[in-house]
Formats: sequence, structure tokens, C-alpha cells
Amino acid sequence: MARTVDPHRHEAKRQDVLLAAAKCFAEKGFHSTSTAEICRVAGMSPGNLFHYFPNKDAIIQAIAEEDRQETALLFAGLDPERNAIDAIIDVAQQTMAHLANPLYAKLSLEIAAEAMRNPAIAAMFAINDRESSEALIALLQRGAERGEIDSDLDLEPSALWLIALVEGAIGRAAMDPAFDAAAHADTLAKLMTRFLTPQAPAPAGDGHAR
Amino acid sequence: MARTVDPHRHEAKRQDVLLAAAKCFAEKGFHSTSTAEICRVAGMSPGNLFHYFPNKDAIIQAIAEEDRQETALLFAGLDPERNAIDAIIDVAQQTMAHLANPLYAKLSLEIAAEAMRNPAIAAMFAINDRESSEALIALLQRGAERGEIDSDLDLEPSALWLIALVEGAIGRAAMDPAFDAAAHADTLAKLMTRFLTPQAPAPAGDGHAR
Repeated sequence: MARTVDPHRHEAKRQDVLLAAAKCFAEKGFHSTSTAEICRVAGMSPGNLFHYFPNKDAIIQAIAEEDRQETALLFAGLDPERNAIDAIIDVAQQTMAHLANPLYAKLSLEIAAEAMRNPAIAAMFAINDRESSEALIALLQRGAERGEIDSDLDLEPSALWLIALVEGAIGRAAMDPAFDAAAHADTLAKLMTRFLTPQAPAPAGDGHAR
Repeated sequence: MARTVDPHRHEAKRQDVLLAAAKCFAEKGFHSTSTAEICRVAGMSPGNLFHYFPNKDAIIQAIAEEDRQETALLFAGLDPERNAIDAIIDVAQQTMAHLANPLYAKLSLEIAAEAMRNPAIAAMFAINDRESSEALIALLQRGAERGEIDSDLDLEPSALWLIALVEGAIGRAAMDPAFDAAAHADTLAKLMTRFLTPQAPAPAGDGHAR
């Protein structure tokens, strides 16, 4: 009798493994996590794990791919007619909303630290990083063309500092469980709005560059 | 014959150990670094190390203390008469200048990741974090009182986002050796200036909150 695989059940189990692995990695780090531990947390026998992932690296690769898809969906879900500054604030705040789950922030910081030492992991996440930078630059560009964003700004470094801002907040959340990004969302929105808004011409005699 | 210790020589050797430890921690992580390795990199016998530090935790504690002192000096060195926004940009850019040394960024990221799992390390660096937040809030406060900084801003979350911005850049530098914070310093200064500058009253009919 041929073995049949229920694709929904297979995908559900695969997601169980990814969540178990994310928990272990966030808690103990990549290095200190064994596949045996991932199986224990996922409630799965080690022999069974290999129906889903051949090894630990494949699990990390799948986490990177999920991260990539989530970011792509986030940008793809933006209404192209929307004011570009509002859209950028929305992306930042949706990312901040993830921080309510401490697992997300801790896993992000663990991935960053591991990427310093592990070129394979660095390469996986470098693709995500490039894609989200490009999506943000495209959004800034569209806003600048429509006069919603200051066209005097250098778009690439502007995107970079906006990303650094969000990543810095993720780092804070990972280190400090009491950190509440949502409580500071208004100030973040103000910062982004003031930075990106086209500047009024300076009144005569005001020599202070903005 | 009594053994005599030359205090200058002792301090120089102590600094050698700290630098060797920082290199090892940045390269391999705290966990994977042994005191034997630190000795090897410092060119010192393991027996000798214990004249300087009783154990690995004491070395990490000393690194935290150096970090605390550097940040305190950075703020203490600011001219109190200087425009507060310029002073804040200066602090940010001096911190960015450290990133030219990849060791600094990598060690910072390693410390952050380790602090997630190690409450003793988290506690050491939490003190530094509180001190630098307080120094920054005091600077914002002084600027707001003198009309240099928008007094409508909430100072605590404003300080928090400025710190997140700099920490995000440190994370980028740790992960990407090609990242050149100095090349993007102008945009960073613009972002901080626009965020913090007192806002001109909106012209009548402009309902868009800034």
C-alpha cells in the first residue's frame, strides 16, 4: 500500500517544528540547540523530524524564508494610493506590533548575533534585508515624486536610518521584556513625519539648515 | 624580598587582557570563549591571568565598566553652552565613529545577545543603559528649556528612539563589515535636527499634524 501524505497535516507539522525551533533558538541560541531538543519541544520523534527538515540549517533557512515572505506581504499589502509617510509609519508600527511577542524580538537578535559568525546564515538574511531596503526605497521614491516626501533627502541613507530605527527597537525589546514599543508609537510617528515631510522654505534671514 | 607591583605595568597588562577578551568574545561569543583562549590571545600564562581577573565574569564586568566610563566621559565632555541639537548629533557621531572599529560593533551585538540569556550580564549593562538614557534626557530637557528643542516632544520616548537609532546602526555595522555609518552621517544629522527642532506654527488651513 502506498504511503499517502496529507499536505495540510504535513504543513501543520512543519509549522510546529518551526515554532519549536524558534523558541529553542531564542532561548538558548543556535549553537546550543540540538535537533533532539527541537523535537522534544515540538513533541515529535527525532526520526520523524527528518520528514520535514534534513538538518538544523534547513530549519534556519525555512525561518529566513518565512521572514522574507512576511516582509514582502507587508509591503505588498500597502495601498499604492496612500500617502507614502503614512504607509511607512504603518509598516514600522506593524513591525513594532510583532514585538508584543517576545519570541520575535529575541529570535531577531539571536539571528543577528549568529549572522556575525556564520556566513551561511548571514547570506540567508542578507537577501531579506536587501528586499526590504529596496521596497522601502521604492516607497520613499514614489512619495518624493508625488511631493509627499522631501525630494531633497538622499533616499538610500534615509531608508537605512529608518530601518536602523526599527531594528534598534527590536534589539531593545529583546533585551528588556518591559519595553513597550506601542507605548512610544506616537513619538515614532512624529519622528518619521518630521524627517520625511517636505520642508517649508526657510524664512529670509534664517541661516540654520534643516 | 617583597614582590613589588608597578601600577602602570599592571594597568597596561590589564588592558591587554580586556582587549584580548573583547576580540575573543566578538569572534566566538562569550560561551565559546575560554579563559585559556583569552590568555593565548593576550600572550599571557593562565596562572598570570588571575593576577588581573579572578574569572571570565570579572572580565565582562570590567568591559561593562569601561563602556560606562566612556559614555559618561562623552556626555561630560559636552560644552553646556552648546546648542542641544548639535550636542546630541555630536554624541551620535562620536558613537558612530567607534564603528570604524568592527570589534566595537561586534562586541556590542554579542553583549546584547548574551544579555538576553544571562541576567548577570543584563544587569551590568542595564546600569550603563540607564545612565546614558538619563544623560540624554537631561540634554533634551535643557534644550527644551532654552527653546532649542521642541518642548512639545515627550522627552523619554524621544530619547528612547534616538538611542534605538544609534543602536540599530551598531547592529548593522556588526552584521555588515561594508556598512559605513560615517558616509550617512549627514542624513542622520538631518533626521535628528528635523525631529527635535521646535515646529513653526502651521499655516492656517494646514490640518496635517506634524
